[in-house]
Amino acid sequence: MTTFSASDIAGMERFYRVNLINSLSGFKSANLVGTVSGEGETNLAIFSQVFHVGANPPLMGMLVRPDSAERHTLRNLLDTGYFTLNHVHESFYRQAHQTSARYEVSEFEACGFTAQFTDALPAPYVAEAQVKIGLQLAQRTDIALNGTILIIGRVLEVMMPEDCLLGDGYLDIEKAGTITASALDGYHITQRLARLAYAKPNQPAREVGG
Amino acid sequence: MTTFSASDIAGMERFYRVNLINSLSGFKSANLVGTVSGEGETNLAIFSQVFHVGANPPLMGMLVRPDSAERHTLRNLLDTGYFTLNHVHESFYRQAHQTSARYEVSEFEACGFTAQFTDALPAPYVAEAQVKIGLQLAQRTDIALNGTILIIGRVLEVMMPEDCLLGDGYLDIEKAGTITASALDGYHITQRLARLAYAKPNQPAREVGG
Repeated sequence: MTTFSASDIAGMERFYRVNLINSLSGFKSANLVGTVSGEGETNLAIFSQVFHVGANPPLMGMLVRPDSAERHTLRNLLDTGYFTLNHVHESFYRQAHQTSARYEVSEFEACGFTAQFTDALPAPYVAEAQVKIGLQLAQRTDIALNGTILIIGRVLEVMMPEDCLLGDGYLDIEKAGTITASALDGYHITQRLARLAYAKPNQPAREVGG
Repeated sequence: MTTFSASDIAGMERFYRVNLINSLSGFKSANLVGTVSGEGETNLAIFSQVFHVGANPPLMGMLVRPDSAERHTLRNLLDTGYFTLNHVHESFYRQAHQTSARYEVSEFEACGFTAQFTDALPAPYVAEAQVKIGLQLAQRTDIALNGTILIIGRVLEVMMPEDCLLGDGYLDIEKAGTITASALDGYHITQRLARLAYAKPNQPAREVGG
């Protein structure tokens, strides 16, 4: 085992620390966030800090760094009040990663994605994605500790492949080709071990339906 | 494609909606959170809403529902100011899931885990885990939208297998046996596709070191 103390971490070379600390939370979601500016220009950026906040009302959260390539996403989202989340699929993870470059033009064009619009909201979806969520900005919370911003959105619309939606509402994102991310730059496919039933104190873990 | 509108979602049966909305963010981290009460009783609970907040200072976030099995974790964490995160390893994901049952005794004993202590903080680590992080409470933020609580902790200590730490600080959590979670009850192993180098506008995505 290697052990690092707080002072070891404080003394690390900057990029070494960035890689290490970004590894610590475990596997991450990988989503392309679609927005549009007040002038109608689309934007697309990959985010790995997207997470579940609550089911009723249906809320999702996202942490944004204002000083990065994410700045256009944040500005558009605050200007218009809408954004989309599009699961990164195995077939286009390289193009998805490429959206983190500092483009002056729309990443849809620059990285080879097609913008898709519905009547539910003005923000663009990624046509190539299998799982897509449209959201309305519900709350902005500034994290004074390091200048990041927590965006919470309310789900307005969801699109997914019909054969990936199970009878109890579980969406089989592995079957839908969704990948997972590690640290700043790792991309991984998955293989499901099991779904485990609601845990009760007096019985061992068992599989759903088992 | 199946499409659900906001009113479709509002009209769903409760558990169907819980399963679906919990699926939407994508793959999740799976961590066991270790705490100790003011009276010295240990507690262990599985969390899938743990995420990276920042590298300098090293900060990690966690969303907590006060009305669930997570309530002991929250009380201990606020009482003592410390907690640990322990990556769920493939070898013990069933016991880790079982910590979500409403035990009146310590989940360390009830679910077959060993508490491990260091000099850096009073909260217990999971001896069986390969990747372990000790944190001090840095900020509590209440999310009024649905009563959840955002806890941000500052990293005090990190332990990991020496052969999983690469030369640039990337921790190979797949090699360390860390698994990923989906929705409320899915557990998955991973297979890395690639690490992709820092993206620049004028060159296509390439692999780290490539």
